[in-house]
Amino acid sequence: MSNPQFSFRQTSFNGPSLLHNRREQVRRATVKAQLQQLKQTGRYDCFKLGWHPTYDEEYQWPVPKSLFWDSDIAKWIEGACYFLSDEYDVEIDAAIRELVGDIRAAQQDDGYLNVYFTVVAPKDRWSNIRDMHELYNAGHLIEAAIAHREYYHNDLLMEPIQRYVQLLNTLFGPAKEQRHAYPGHPEIELALLRLYKATGNHDAYTLARYFIEERGNPVGQDGLLYFDWEEKQRGDSHWLRPNHYPEAGSHWYNQAHLPILQQDSVEGHAVRAMYLLTAVADLVSLDKVGLKPLPENQRWLATLHRLWNNMVDKKMYVTGGIGAVKQWEGFGPDYFLPQGTDEGGCYAETCASIGVMMLAERLLEIELDSRYADVMELCLYNGVMTAMDLGGTAFTYVNQLASSDKDKSVRSSWFEVSCCPPNLMRLFGGLGGYLWDYGSEEGEAFVNVHLYTTAKLEFDAGEGVITLQQTSDWPWEGTVRFELRAPPSLDTTVRLRVPKWAKGRFRLEPPCDLAKIDKTGYLALPASYTKEHPVFVLHIGGVEPRFVMPHPYTNQNTLTLARGPLVYCVEDIDNPWVEDYFKNVAISPTATVTERHREFQGHRYVELQARGSTRSLGAWQPKEEGSSPGADVVPLGHDESTTDLVFIPYYLRANRGGRGQMRTGLIRETTSCC
Amino acid sequence: MSNPQFSFRQTSFNGPSLLHNRREQVRRATVKAQLQQLKQTGRYDCFKLGWHPTYDEEYQWPVPKSLFWDSDIAKWIEGACYFLSDEYDVEIDAAIRELVGDIRAAQQDDGYLNVYFTVVAPKDRWSNIRDMHELYNAGHLIEAAIAHREYYHNDLLMEPIQRYVQLLNTLFGPAKEQRHAYPGHPEIELALLRLYKATGNHDAYTLARYFIEERGNPVGQDGLLYFDWEEKQRGDSHWLRPNHYPEAGSHWYNQAHLPILQQDSVEGHAVRAMYLLTAVADLVSLDKVGLKPLPENQRWLATLHRLWNNMVDKKMYVTGGIGAVKQWEGFGPDYFLPQGTDEGGCYAETCASIGVMMLAERLLEIELDSRYADVMELCLYNGVMTAMDLGGTAFTYVNQLASSDKDKSVRSSWFEVSCCPPNLMRLFGGLGGYLWDYGSEEGEAFVNVHLYTTAKLEFDAGEGVITLQQTSDWPWEGTVRFELRAPPSLDTTVRLRVPKWAKGRFRLEPPCDLAKIDKTGYLALPASYTKEHPVFVLHIGGVEPRFVMPHPYTNQNTLTLARGPLVYCVEDIDNPWVEDYFKNVAISPTATVTERHREFQGHRYVELQARGSTRSLGAWQPKEEGSSPGADVVPLGHDESTTDLVFIPYYLRANRGGRGQMRTGLIRETTSCC
Repeated sequence: MSNPQFSFRQTSFNGPSLLHNRREQVRRATVKAQLQQLKQTGRYDCFKLGWHPTYDEEYQWPVPKSLFWDSDIAKWIEGACYFLSDEYDVEIDAAIRELVGDIRAAQQDDGYLNVYFTVVAPKDRWSNIRDMHELYNAGHLIEAAIAHREYYHNDLLMEPIQRYVQLLNTLFGPAKEQRHAYPGHPEIELALLRLYKATGNHDAYTLARYFIEERGNPVGQDGLLYFDWEEKQRGDSHWLRPNHYPEAGSHWYNQAHLPILQQDSVEGHAVRAMYLLTAVADLVSLDKVGLKPLPENQRWLATLHRLWNNMVDKKMYVTGGIGAVKQWEGFGPDYFLPQGTDEGGCYAETCASIGVMMLAERLLEIELDSRYADVMELCLYNGVMTAMDLGGTAFTYVNQLASSDKDKSVRSSWFEVSCCPPNLMRLFGGLGGYLWDYGSEEGEAFVNVHLYTTAKLEFDAGEGVITLQQTSDWPWEGTVRFELRAPPSLDTTVRLRVPKWAKGRFRLEPPCDLAKIDKTGYLALPASYTKEHPVFVLHIGGVEPRFVMPHPYTNQNTLTLARGPLVYCVEDIDNPWVEDYFKNVAISPTATVTERHREFQGHRYVELQARGSTRSLGAWQPKEEGSSPGADVVPLGHDESTTDLVFIPYYLRANRGGRGQMRTGLIRETTSCC
Repeated sequence: MSNPQFSFRQTSFNGPSLLHNRREQVRRATVKAQLQQLKQTGRYDCFKLGWHPTYDEEYQWPVPKSLFWDSDIAKWIEGACYFLSDEYDVEIDAAIRELVGDIRAAQQDDGYLNVYFTVVAPKDRWSNIRDMHELYNAGHLIEAAIAHREYYHNDLLMEPIQRYVQLLNTLFGPAKEQRHAYPGHPEIELALLRLYKATGNHDAYTLARYFIEERGNPVGQDGLLYFDWEEKQRGDSHWLRPNHYPEAGSHWYNQAHLPILQQDSVEGHAVRAMYLLTAVADLVSLDKVGLKPLPENQRWLATLHRLWNNMVDKKMYVTGGIGAVKQWEGFGPDYFLPQGTDEGGCYAETCASIGVMMLAERLLEIELDSRYADVMELCLYNGVMTAMDLGGTAFTYVNQLASSDKDKSVRSSWFEVSCCPPNLMRLFGGLGGYLWDYGSEEGEAFVNVHLYTTAKLEFDAGEGVITLQQTSDWPWEGTVRFELRAPPSLDTTVRLRVPKWAKGRFRLEPPCDLAKIDKTGYLALPASYTKEHPVFVLHIGGVEPRFVMPHPYTNQNTLTLARGPLVYCVEDIDNPWVEDYFKNVAISPTATVTERHREFQGHRYVELQARGSTRSLGAWQPKEEGSSPGADVVPLGHDESTTDLVFIPYYLRANRGGRGQMRTGLIRETTSCC
């Protein structure tokens, strides 16, 4: 059991596939393009601790524009190290070495390490842990150090980071003289737990656990919630607050309104929620014997279940996007999932869907269950992959389900707060780690295959090396060929996920009487089978167009085309007649959908075609302006004229020009007897 | 032409009708019940300028709990004076006299008159015109003074108020030494224009016009928007803001983001918007010759049209409620009209619908158009009337279209910020003024009848008195009998509104060949007809149950039962099986709806009955928790089992006990061929 950031090294994408191609593009183009951005924007040199004009610029209080620069550098180092494992690159290597040198030199005597609070506001250190991201930046530095040590096999970055962690461990904790604090933006918790796993630093484990357990304590510091206490220390008015706090004291914005164990629903900033719960899952994962969490951890696991279910069932878009509300970049009320800004909201930040993948992967480590892997795959192929163009150099931060005049479907090469682009980069770097879990013990080994593609797993199973090669044109087709090589002395069970959308349709060649989908949602191939048939082929049924719909309580009476794990959308480039962002395009669930294999600049994909119609606005078409808020009921329906519609995978949007008009869910054609 | 607050004295409700009965209940119960509330809460004595424990209580910064007390007193005096005209009451008279004495004594030497800024924070006068409601309170005091003078025929209240207005006129205006300010909460503009009309005080007119024209000037004070300037003067951080400001500098919250003439859509706090536009309409009304606004006023009129249309077509509920967003008690984006808190919002404040009535009435004075009267009637019978119980002593502030666990359909006898109850009281006091417009000139007279009920109009037409008696059981039936008495020398035209929901169906007895519905939407009966037939009967067709629907862009696929001007709802008291706030009750537009005349505690109403069904949640019913955000498409539909539903008028909700479960729009039964 280990996180994908470690385990991806056991996986090689060794043949063409959608995932391989996208990952290759990141390696070829994204890493260096982002390095250029870091250099152009001043980030690259920030650890040299010179002054930068940005520090003088106006900003959205209280967050200066450079506040996240440490984390941008850290995420780039982390991701770059992952890709260097694939292929050495002298420019990238040199950049990492320079940055590491800068970071080492930037560390203060007491171990403190943060650009803004060293160069610009040294007196304000730790004065606003709620908003100022010191611990968030520290977390990303820790993750960078782990990746750096893994690749370079030296402690040049790890050493200063460990000193910083030592400082944090002195500053924060339960003792009287320590701050009973926890980060406004969770991240460091999961980083500390990874550090513990990588280095055995038990202080890191203790600190992470403290941050998690203390969070939301209403009387944690001098009888106050920590964030309220520090506000008083600063002498801030309770009514002074950042723009993303809808009202004073909205501690739910950063999941501190209640101790985590008492939270019944997932609330607030979506990325923060995901990073936090990922760390909680790591905690559960660490405190178990075999597959069972320890008794005290059952409550944490129950909390994870509760919040996961609330999120997936009531607060997630059909693309795997989360966060309907722009103001706090997070969750609205249950079932509040409008498709776009003009319909009431839709944020679906890239980092948030990456966070869902992280959480899902951690939950899969705790308990194999295809529902986690289904959602993980949904996020990967849609909410996440849609955030980067084919060239790997242009991104979206927000991934709406429908664009509008105010928020067109367009990309940028960088952002002022640029968390998403390097997050994509490091995700693709460690992507192999999301494909499968594996392990061995006492003569038995297992591989649980979560994601299908073309890739090879190779791991040391104690009694020898196990390799599992999977070969597939997934997600375009449902056939996956496996070839297992394992020491004969090992009994190797292979479990294969059958996605829910396959509705139980699968075929195994050669057949296996003992194999059936168990309660995990996986097809378990017993060792007897894999020994006899080291080469076998899985055919997942149902990789064909289907319509999906959101929960009726969302008030979204829409249909979205999907095919396998892919969600589809319409764009104006293929449907150039559109003028209203497809707001009035209706489609019937019985529409005939045809497939066409297409290629764009070498990128293969399956286009879908179907006929739609134009929703009739009925009484509103001839209605006199300003005469009444409603209208007498009219038959529902649509114009007789039908419209040919071309659909492309949602991840492919905003790649081929056009006017930025895009929509996933189309109005469902209905008939009413009136 | 005069505002209803003056003209209602020409109207008597002289027979039973829904309006008469509701108004009588206010006279009998509400006026004294609210007097009791004023006394119990400390408001009654506040102008005595003693200390009250409330002044020491914590409050939602920056608005102390007592900030609106002046206006509560003022609105009560205003409303009470209206009802005293009906029937003298010694207790009410004594209270008004005492309050007026207190107000006179409370006035400062310079004319200043405000409780909070005299007793609690005298140093802070005029330091926060954006939030602190000094001008709003002043406006209501002006309205009280006008009503007081009308009833008492003395200047005991008018005199100090005129002195206060003189002070305001010195403080605010375009001169260099004056503040270039305007109120955060508009109200005083319409009050000043009424004062001008009542007393001829031209300074009041000038000041109102200045407030309106200066509003939103981006460089009004020292190169800054006034609200930004005063923030700087206070030394406030730009990031210090009241809870209802979604972000720093949300000047659209109080309609100051742009000069009014440049505003394209109605934004922000709904009550503020309505009070402001009512004053703009008054301005246009004053600056016209005959029926034509002066050329410079055409731009103001165009602005009124633009904002009215935006509001009615895109931001108004089918009940006449406005304001979907609770945080700023105001408008969301176009077509954002969820039915309840649990679906994303619904505020529909009582005062806002009263404001729509005021605006509609002013627009009717400028240009006769039945669309204004239709909306005015809709608000009166639904969004407004639903806010008071049958006893006249319990109220709602927020009038959601569907209740939920968080916001049940229940009433309170008073509120901490209690603008709505006395606003209802004074609205019912002056209700007669909303029924009709009338006038006479050079041998011609007219009466434009906007609302039907049983009432008598009597006015001096120069050459004699005209009376028009209308008798009807409206809104339960569509027949209205008219009896006109006019001096034979006068040619009297009577125009009768034919509501849009009647779809042109009407019958006049005796018939009139010349009478047809003209472009105003009114049926004009020429003088030749009214002379020959001083008694005539109008039968408005279509007073029968019908289904209405909101605009498709609202994503509310719902049907609402209506009958005449009344919107209907379902409540748990009649449908006791309900457990889910009727969230899953569907109804077909072809459902047979039957009527039943009912009575509850002497209150007659028409109940409707129809069969509904239970919406099927399809794939979600057996769905595994946390497995995916959407589901493969399933046939739309509903359980075969049907449900008998009982509907009552929306205004009648929350009167007969029950569990507070209520809904207006039910899911529309649809079939889909899948």
